[in-house]
Amino acid sequence: MASKHSNFRECFGNFSQGFLPRIDSFIKNYYDEKISSSQDDYARELYGVIAEYCLRDGKRIRPLLLLASYIGYRRFFKKTDEVLKLAAVVELMHSFLLIQDDIIDRSETRRGGKSLHILLGEKYGHLTHNPNIGPDIAIVLADIIFSNAMEIIYSVRIDLKVKNRFLEIFSKTYEKTAWGQILDSLNSMVKTMERGNSAPMKIGLMKTAWYTIVYPMMMGYVLSGGKSNRELRAIEEFAIPLGEAFQIRDDILGVFGKEESTGKPGDSDILEGKFTMLIYYALEILGEGDGVAFSNLLLKKNKSAGDVSEVRNMLERSGALKKAMDRHGALIEEAREKLKNLAISRETGNILTGILESLGEIKCISSSHAHYG
Amino acid sequence: MASKHSNFRECFGNFSQGFLPRIDSFIKNYYDEKISSSQDDYARELYGVIAEYCLRDGKRIRPLLLLASYIGYRRFFKKTDEVLKLAAVVELMHSFLLIQDDIIDRSETRRGGKSLHILLGEKYGHLTHNPNIGPDIAIVLADIIFSNAMEIIYSVRIDLKVKNRFLEIFSKTYEKTAWGQILDSLNSMVKTMERGNSAPMKIGLMKTAWYTIVYPMMMGYVLSGGKSNRELRAIEEFAIPLGEAFQIRDDILGVFGKEESTGKPGDSDILEGKFTMLIYYALEILGEGDGVAFSNLLLKKNKSAGDVSEVRNMLERSGALKKAMDRHGALIEEAREKLKNLAISRETGNILTGILESLGEIKCISSSHAHYG
Repeated sequence: MASKHSNFRECFGNFSQGFLPRIDSFIKNYYDEKISSSQDDYARELYGVIAEYCLRDGKRIRPLLLLASYIGYRRFFKKTDEVLKLAAVVELMHSFLLIQDDIIDRSETRRGGKSLHILLGEKYGHLTHNPNIGPDIAIVLADIIFSNAMEIIYSVRIDLKVKNRFLEIFSKTYEKTAWGQILDSLNSMVKTMERGNSAPMKIGLMKTAWYTIVYPMMMGYVLSGGKSNRELRAIEEFAIPLGEAFQIRDDILGVFGKEESTGKPGDSDILEGKFTMLIYYALEILGEGDGVAFSNLLLKKNKSAGDVSEVRNMLERSGALKKAMDRHGALIEEAREKLKNLAISRETGNILTGILESLGEIKCISSSHAHYG
Repeated sequence: MASKHSNFRECFGNFSQGFLPRIDSFIKNYYDEKISSSQDDYARELYGVIAEYCLRDGKRIRPLLLLASYIGYRRFFKKTDEVLKLAAVVELMHSFLLIQDDIIDRSETRRGGKSLHILLGEKYGHLTHNPNIGPDIAIVLADIIFSNAMEIIYSVRIDLKVKNRFLEIFSKTYEKTAWGQILDSLNSMVKTMERGNSAPMKIGLMKTAWYTIVYPMMMGYVLSGGKSNRELRAIEEFAIPLGEAFQIRDDILGVFGKEESTGKPGDSDILEGKFTMLIYYALEILGEGDGVAFSNLLLKKNKSAGDVSEVRNMLERSGALKKAMDRHGALIEEAREKLKNLAISRETGNILTGILESLGEIKCISSSHAHYG
């Protein structure tokens, strides 16, 4: 659930051009069929809302990684059409989580449109005195998406042992991601920040590394018929540093990135006092005295433009930015090494190398650290 | 999700005494194992919260019906220990829905304890400035329960074709229930009530008949190895009238029931202006003029005790109560007839007959209609 990387989809090159339209058209056809077979006006209307929401422009990184992994490992199975449906399931489940995320974060926009609870509030608010009709319906509409994901899983025609293995990874994916989200909530809008609290790293591992990289690759592997726990470990060893680098890069760009390339205001992380890896490093370096002053400033309500600059300066002067940059570089190198251990095809290897290179580059507004890696 | 029926569990007699402790101890052991294998303090603590919540005293009607159906149809399969785990899954998914229900209804209590979002708000409120930390974490903790349900499903050792069939019914169960919940939200706290709007009946069918009776019985049937669509239809024909009777009885008791047997205040449905089958009949009978006066009174905010009595009197005088009672009686009779078509064992037949008889009796505070059926 990291922010926008405009160049991310490009790593998948032709692969993306081939598969993306097929994933989206599967989702579209699935909901068109729901609409035409439904007998209730409100359900027809809301299936349309779901389809519009799920088909909004997004990176589709998880379904694409699942497919790249499946294709890269494929030996005996030629079930790409069926596996493609499970890639769509992963995208639908992403929508399920985004809907809940936006309710939790009180976000008003998502993927170039209104967030679902806002959209539903506007659509149905005139009917009732319930001021929460938007979030109330959005929570349950998300459940409908998850039931639809289940329906697609049971209807997919693949070897049932493989399907059961997929279900195993599926259950782990959404459990670990949820634990990451809860840890995130427990560390958001906090009253105090403790030095040494490793929550930002754990959250990044669970919500980004495992959710976005490790599990989609594992799903692709088991769907290819793969049964080796050794290969699953190799995937983990490659994808964990990659995912952690992804998160650190996001944290850096959230403070030092250019708004036009990150797609979000460059001061939002500081304004909301977000506890990121950059902050973790700053607290670690600054120690007791300066660290408390720093976290007090970061946690101050209604920060001025001067406060925001001061936080940014402290992150740079303290060496926290450099530490994050160094860690990011080391993780990218580690992932590059571990990539060699994967028993995948050259095509998929090239895609993963492209992702590594794309994530290796961080374009900062702070000139001293620009164009790293 | 109907209200409390104290005598309901008794219908299952020895059957309940045998299985209930096993369902609960499976859930307890499952979360004990999660607690002991978890490495994070917050996760250990929250697994404990989940276990306490899911193990609170409840009717367990859905897992018991699933098991009664499985046992009643069992021919070749002797996988009761494994099927019992899937019965526990149905109970866990019920907790998933109850958590969301209480967030949506802003309910503060559930099953003799605090509702989950209230409990979590009190537990973690001191950490953050987020006034919604309770519901925010509760939404995601519910997702963890659903991931756990998935984990149990993949780990259960039954024939994989049977498991896939179970997944089919499972996906339908939670989709239909969600549509019922959305229709309920769209018809709650409404600004106007339209004569002829059949939402109360549809909501009852989806949230009670299908969710509580039809699908649990279908799950039991497919888990017994049953493959006959004819038998699935027979289950539907029996369980739909039974479930509808269940809902109408609930609607009647919500206005005319004794507080000590329903477990909720006798005026809450009227105070919140709930659109039930009783109201549907009243609007139908009263016609344009009187119907508008009636619905205006029902939708009035801050109703006095006199207003509540007047609504109750109008429901009785108009004949709406009688119509609901008659419909309830006819549905019970219909279910009794259809029960004969089910190819189930005598033991399960007796349980279903017991449920029919339990639901056939409505003890009203209004003496004129007491002890019906």
